[in-house]
Amino acid sequence: MISPLLTDFYQLTMACGYWKLGLHEREAVFHLIYRKHPFKGNYAIACGLGSVIEFLNQWKFEKSDLDYLRSLRTPEGIAFFPDEFLDYLQNLRFTGDIDAIPEGTIAFTQEPLMRIKAPLIQGQLLESALLNIINFQTLIATKATRVCKAASPDPVFEFGLRRAQGPDGALSASRAAYIGGCVATSNVLAGKLYDIPVRGTHAHSWVTAFPDERTAFSAYAKVMPSNCTLLVDTFNTIEGVKHAIETGKKLRQEGHELLGIRLDSGDIAALSINARQLLDAAGFTKTKIIASNSLDEYVIQKMKQQGCKIDIWGAGTNLVTAYDHPALDGVYKLSALRDDKGKWVYKLKLSEQAAKISNPGIHQIRRYFSKDKAILDVIYDIESGISDPVIEYDHCMDLLVPIFKNGKIIYSPESIHQIREKTLHEVTKFTKDYPEDTYPLELDKKLQKIKQELIRLLQT
Amino acid sequence: MISPLLTDFYQLTMACGYWKLGLHEREAVFHLIYRKHPFKGNYAIACGLGSVIEFLNQWKFEKSDLDYLRSLRTPEGIAFFPDEFLDYLQNLRFTGDIDAIPEGTIAFTQEPLMRIKAPLIQGQLLESALLNIINFQTLIATKATRVCKAASPDPVFEFGLRRAQGPDGALSASRAAYIGGCVATSNVLAGKLYDIPVRGTHAHSWVTAFPDERTAFSAYAKVMPSNCTLLVDTFNTIEGVKHAIETGKKLRQEGHELLGIRLDSGDIAALSINARQLLDAAGFTKTKIIASNSLDEYVIQKMKQQGCKIDIWGAGTNLVTAYDHPALDGVYKLSALRDDKGKWVYKLKLSEQAAKISNPGIHQIRRYFSKDKAILDVIYDIESGISDPVIEYDHCMDLLVPIFKNGKIIYSPESIHQIREKTLHEVTKFTKDYPEDTYPLELDKKLQKIKQELIRLLQT
Repeated sequence: MISPLLTDFYQLTMACGYWKLGLHEREAVFHLIYRKHPFKGNYAIACGLGSVIEFLNQWKFEKSDLDYLRSLRTPEGIAFFPDEFLDYLQNLRFTGDIDAIPEGTIAFTQEPLMRIKAPLIQGQLLESALLNIINFQTLIATKATRVCKAASPDPVFEFGLRRAQGPDGALSASRAAYIGGCVATSNVLAGKLYDIPVRGTHAHSWVTAFPDERTAFSAYAKVMPSNCTLLVDTFNTIEGVKHAIETGKKLRQEGHELLGIRLDSGDIAALSINARQLLDAAGFTKTKIIASNSLDEYVIQKMKQQGCKIDIWGAGTNLVTAYDHPALDGVYKLSALRDDKGKWVYKLKLSEQAAKISNPGIHQIRRYFSKDKAILDVIYDIESGISDPVIEYDHCMDLLVPIFKNGKIIYSPESIHQIREKTLHEVTKFTKDYPEDTYPLELDKKLQKIKQELIRLLQT
Repeated sequence: MISPLLTDFYQLTMACGYWKLGLHEREAVFHLIYRKHPFKGNYAIACGLGSVIEFLNQWKFEKSDLDYLRSLRTPEGIAFFPDEFLDYLQNLRFTGDIDAIPEGTIAFTQEPLMRIKAPLIQGQLLESALLNIINFQTLIATKATRVCKAASPDPVFEFGLRRAQGPDGALSASRAAYIGGCVATSNVLAGKLYDIPVRGTHAHSWVTAFPDERTAFSAYAKVMPSNCTLLVDTFNTIEGVKHAIETGKKLRQEGHELLGIRLDSGDIAALSINARQLLDAAGFTKTKIIASNSLDEYVIQKMKQQGCKIDIWGAGTNLVTAYDHPALDGVYKLSALRDDKGKWVYKLKLSEQAAKISNPGIHQIRRYFSKDKAILDVIYDIESGISDPVIEYDHCMDLLVPIFKNGKIIYSPESIHQIREKTLHEVTKFTKDYPEDTYPLELDKKLQKIKQELIRLLQT
């Protein structure tokens, strides 16, 4: 359970400010978008909605939270938050609407991954946590699609716990990596919490705990006969492979098979070729070779070009921290606010950089398809409606689907396994249709006009 | 509370293996070390022990954890873990000894940040969580010292929540960033949990929620008169500064001061010079200028060289994700195990790379000082004792201090504020004495000999 105090302090001072001015319950619209595709790529995979739903279902300030807020003082020694405001927070529950792109869907810059329509104070207090959850899981799901695509058709295990960014950096990453296409995680808690298959072999410490490698392998085969994968690089990899084969022969006599060996250091591509020959020559043609050690999409691709004989890839640090691009640049912008007569007033933030000028309005995204190929996304304002498209298309769909309505969940999330299947399908299709090209994305003409008028107004 | 299931699956299969073989309660020693200084630097700041203590004090398998483990099946459909083993886990508590380098201490590669002496099964089951916690917090504390040093003597606020790697990626980072020298965090939950000062200004959404910037600033001054810092770049930064000055004049008439303005986009160094002139000319010489937007030690240094007029730095994404080096490469190696007669047998793992050959034994680190300057660290085996040093020194100290003894905590952690003070002191001194040089670090002669003999033995 995540406390609603997982927010930036300025959200609370602003919330208090809106409350003091009587603006706090004005209905507002915020969009959560990202501005730049991660990993020099051309898409992202929407991910994190499941965790957002969990967070919102429990969103409630507890007494200890309010006591903490009551204790905070300005530099002048004055309480930041009046008691009446804290009483208001005590009774606050989420009462707004959320529409979001379902997890596992391909998304692009400027498209709202989530639209929040709620009393201003709620939209504001939720900003930081929603960004935190969506930014990270979308980042890792996207990274995982890249790693899995490089490894395809071989499976990828996620092994990142030990070097992930904190306990939850690991858990969220395991969830997102599975959604992005990994087949299993080593993180047992993630397995329990998210119903992800767990897998593992053994560590060097198993080998060093015994007098020598042969003894260690025999012992492992004895205790794990039906799940025996041996790590062969503790002392010398090729000797390790030979010892694993000896162990495999004994296993066979007892009716079991040596499932695999794992390579974790050295020139893994070359070692895998050598190991494959040794295994095949000894009749272990079905024994899998697993590789681990700083793998990412680039390393995997390179090893495949070198003709490696790897069957299963264990990706850790580089996957779960998104090492080459460790943060998605998601932002959360106010785009509409009702005035005192209940009329929508559209909002935007200017910037010297055009890409940083936010889009006003209340958005929906329509995706057009021609013969199952996505050909265009249009962001439009639902109050103005969408203009007729100038392209030919077979069918279309709106990407944002209702998740919460008046604070109640009205969405039945798919299982994590279904989400993963959807991701695999979407990514396979998209990367074939758009290997490197920019996907066509437009602001609807009416929305474009509203935006230009607002910019003109603000610049005069 | 972190579940003991926050571990890699192979720890549980190995634990079960040791249990089946009756080796599980043999006393073992593991060291947690890192191999490469992060950020192309020459030190790290030990951090995370406080969170490890919290984790170990609650380390206990719950019924739902055991039920989950009971449900797991091998590819052949056989239960991974026998019921008797799960009964054993149910009653398992930490009963070992832990010695660690206290938080806020400068540490170097190959030095154990933590030594775990415990029944083999416990040491193994704890590995992944200890690595996860120590790797990440040590990384971020080290990053924070670099950012804070670049900003010095100006204070640094940590503003990273929205783009941190998950909820805990944010919380752990806030803790470690404060220990590394930041003066405050924007993360309210981190403030509550770790007693860190919280700070914040307001967002662009506050400004866009009002008809224009002047109205927004007046409203903010009205509701936060004694804590008024205004974000001036929503539409046009220089106009924003002028509007802030107008607001500051009104605040003064009511007996308050404009505390600060915040710059969040554009050429912040140039804008700060311009803003300072405008503020000073209007008599706001004490109004602070706060900068945010993708700051790290390199950007801060560059802006200082450009003569910027920034008083306070808000560091977010690049700090809390350690963007340029997002994982510390900590490892956890078995280095000694008692045999069936209770005698210690020393252990090591070989590698083609010398730096990856682990050190056998039971380690302590002695730091030698000459006139308060640290001049040498020696890693030694406590069973063999330390050789006489060949250098002249005034005094020395052993870095690993007892934390847990027979499973009971015997260490009174310092407050987070004391740890932060210690870090500041250590880093200031160390970076003066060793601006870029490698710090002298040796393996004790006796330990070196033990290691060489073991390598020879394993290679024959």
